[in-house]
Amino acid sequence: KINGERLWDSLMEMAKIGATPKGGVCRLALTDLDKQGRDLFVQWCKDAGCTIRVDKMGNIFARREGRNPALPPIVTGSHLDSQPTGGRFDGVYGVLAGLEVIRTLNDLNYETEAPVEVAVWTNEEGSRFAPAMVSSGVFAGVFDLDYGLSRKDQDGRTMGEELERIGYSGPDDASHAAHPVGAYFEAHIEQGPILEAEDKTIGVVTDAQGQRWYEVTFTGVESHAGPTPMNRRKDALLGAARVVDAVNRIGLKHAPTACATVGMMTVYPNSRNVIPGNVFFTIDFRHPSDDVLAEMDREMRAEVDRIAAEIGLDCQLEQIFYYKPVKFEESCVAAVRKGVEEGGFSVRDMVSGAGHDACYLARVAPAGMIFVPCIDGISHNEVEDAKPEWIAAGCEVLLHAMLQKANE
Amino acid sequence: KINGERLWDSLMEMAKIGATPKGGVCRLALTDLDKQGRDLFVQWCKDAGCTIRVDKMGNIFARREGRNPALPPIVTGSHLDSQPTGGRFDGVYGVLAGLEVIRTLNDLNYETEAPVEVAVWTNEEGSRFAPAMVSSGVFAGVFDLDYGLSRKDQDGRTMGEELERIGYSGPDDASHAAHPVGAYFEAHIEQGPILEAEDKTIGVVTDAQGQRWYEVTFTGVESHAGPTPMNRRKDALLGAARVVDAVNRIGLKHAPTACATVGMMTVYPNSRNVIPGNVFFTIDFRHPSDDVLAEMDREMRAEVDRIAAEIGLDCQLEQIFYYKPVKFEESCVAAVRKGVEEGGFSVRDMVSGAGHDACYLARVAPAGMIFVPCIDGISHNEVEDAKPEWIAAGCEVLLHAMLQKANE
Ligand SMILES: NC(=O)NCCC(=O)O
Ligand SMILES: NC(=O)NCCC(=O)O
Repeated sequence: KINGERLWDSLMEMAKIGATPKGGVCRLALTDLDKQGRDLFVQWCKDAGCTIRVDKMGNIFARREGRNPALPPIVTGSHLDSQPTGGRFDGVYGVLAGLEVIRTLNDLNYETEAPVEVAVWTNEEGSRFAPAMVSSGVFAGVFDLDYGLSRKDQDGRTMGEELERIGYSGPDDASHAAHPVGAYFEAHIEQGPILEAEDKTIGVVTDAQGQRWYEVTFTGVESHAGPTPMNRRKDALLGAARVVDAVNRIGLKHAPTACATVGMMTVYPNSRNVIPGNVFFTIDFRHPSDDVLAEMDREMRAEVDRIAAEIGLDCQLEQIFYYKPVKFEESCVAAVRKGVEEGGFSVRDMVSGAGHDACYLARVAPAGMIFVPCIDGISHNEVEDAKPEWIAAGCEVLLHAMLQKANE
Repeated sequence: KINGERLWDSLMEMAKIGATPKGGVCRLALTDLDKQGRDLFVQWCKDAGCTIRVDKMGNIFARREGRNPALPPIVTGSHLDSQPTGGRFDGVYGVLAGLEVIRTLNDLNYETEAPVEVAVWTNEEGSRFAPAMVSSGVFAGVFDLDYGLSRKDQDGRTMGEELERIGYSGPDDASHAAHPVGAYFEAHIEQGPILEAEDKTIGVVTDAQGQRWYEVTFTGVESHAGPTPMNRRKDALLGAARVVDAVNRIGLKHAPTACATVGMMTVYPNSRNVIPGNVFFTIDFRHPSDDVLAEMDREMRAEVDRIAAEIGLDCQLEQIFYYKPVKFEESCVAAVRKGVEEGGFSVRDMVSGAGHDACYLARVAPAGMIFVPCIDGISHNEVEDAKPEWIAAGCEVLLHAMLQKANE
């Protein structure tokens, strides 16, 4: 029913904004390129007859009116920001699948009972500004507005300043209370290897893993790499290196479901012949069980303390982001299943390894997610890829699921 | 005999150029601040009646003429560049101690037989541009001029371009053949803890450790930290972390004399929720025995190969800098000893842990070094410090040693 070619073409058009040499995208949140992507999306939505609202977190809502404008809208969406070396599908697929649903409804002159909206959530990736999903988090009341607007990038610029700068600091309250959501659906690439390995086209997402993110700073003593004897060193990088290995051990111990990653590390002063005096790094823990996540937390803290003590380092450790495992609402999961049946696609249930805006929306509205495979399970990588038929199938399921909810 | 207060005041005046909040100095090679430091030194030398020569590597020679201008000059000196978070003494002490020798000779109207010169060697630290001591190396014929001028910083700017930019690309050949040196002395802070711990004022440097510097790049697969199972990862940072620990083990195995350091590490794409696909890091090995240094090299290569294989990483490993342990010339060591006796200072023999321009000069001229203590053995750190009486004592010894050689 949906037009897979039109959807694919729009994805490829959007992928030109911030295109990278290896076929990926670098469109970091609230940069000029993010603004270009937003402008293009807004233009496409206006062309499709939608009205546009922007809230104080820069979240964009494109609305196709329903027969009963008083009903809360059925919303879909995702994000347009990317990782520094991101792909052409992560996030943008969910946004443009939503636009394709609206375009399809227009083609059919189909009037839904409830309004239908496509949302773009600001800074989902959490790469330029930590944490992830900060603006859907504000919308869901998990974070307050001040917290959201004061998130800083590595250069000290805040989300609030950057929203102003690119012209996406809107007038509306960034809150589900001001803008109730009837139901929320999100289509996304799996970003993992399971669907492709099992040759399934659709993943019905029933749950999402819990996450804990940390920032650690080790401080030792900067000193000369030549005349400073091994036994007089307080090498902050040696400490950080041992934590990287410990984090990996903790991940392996709770595998196959746990994930444990050090993704970011900054060494200071970062000079070849200076023993590093200061190292900043991050830890990312995930598990579908909140208890195991708490156990990983305890194990990691013990390791960090032990390692800091054995080298004589000062340690600052802060958990900057935490959310419990998410269970998606039964009626939305059922609507997705029904959509899959109607399309006749191969399917399996999935637990999402990544966080998604849907995880926060699930706190304030019935929510569900649709996964499609990606090549080799690779995401957060310029080579991220997906087959056009997967992309079309997920959008088809999204249309069906939204129509069920919009006409309930 | 020398004027300790004048020397100290000049050191403090120079330390204003690139002063850092914690009392140190950031005067990276061939930056605008390096130019300011050079300009000040040149002005002071002109005020002291010296003539100035600059060679193609930007090495500066300030000359006080001797009774016999045909004799090769007795040269002293060191460097004005610093680490990113460097101190007020590393390098600049050797330069300004040389200036103080000339000022003292002027005060006394003392005419030496051979000319006396103070040299400033470009980019000794090897921090902005690797390797260390590149311009004294070119002067000594260890590197050719093209190699020296083509050294690049992290932003891809070359030493040649930067010398032009700050106006210190001189006309003279950067070669001992074009400018023979009668003898070379260098005063320097120890940069290690031994002299202070043993309450000695002067270290007579008999040897310098050998060094090997490496660059390593590990390449794995960038992927999403959430949905990528532990057993499907090729985490470049995990590999680098294990090498940091292995390098430390190799250093400890050959302690107390060995040093082994990873000082620099850059993680790519450096995003919290991305498994690092690429990590660049450096290794710095030192030992007074060339055989042990070769053994450390073999051990490290075996570890790097093992670690890369166990994680499935591609590995590029390059040794970018190597020099054998240095033995300083007997007559110069004797001249330093004699200077210590005349001053009546407490003394011990030392092996230099750091590399110095004197190590390369030793290949083309009789050379010797004088160490003075530094507080807590700390160097390559903003808090680097020394007592005025140590600073004065080292300069006194330098004066005596140079006069012996200049009047031989
Ligand atoms: N989907 C996605 O890549 N989200 C980023 C937040 C996370 O790391 O889970
Ligand atoms: N003296 C000094 O800090 N030299 C830098 C070269 C080295 O790392 O040994």
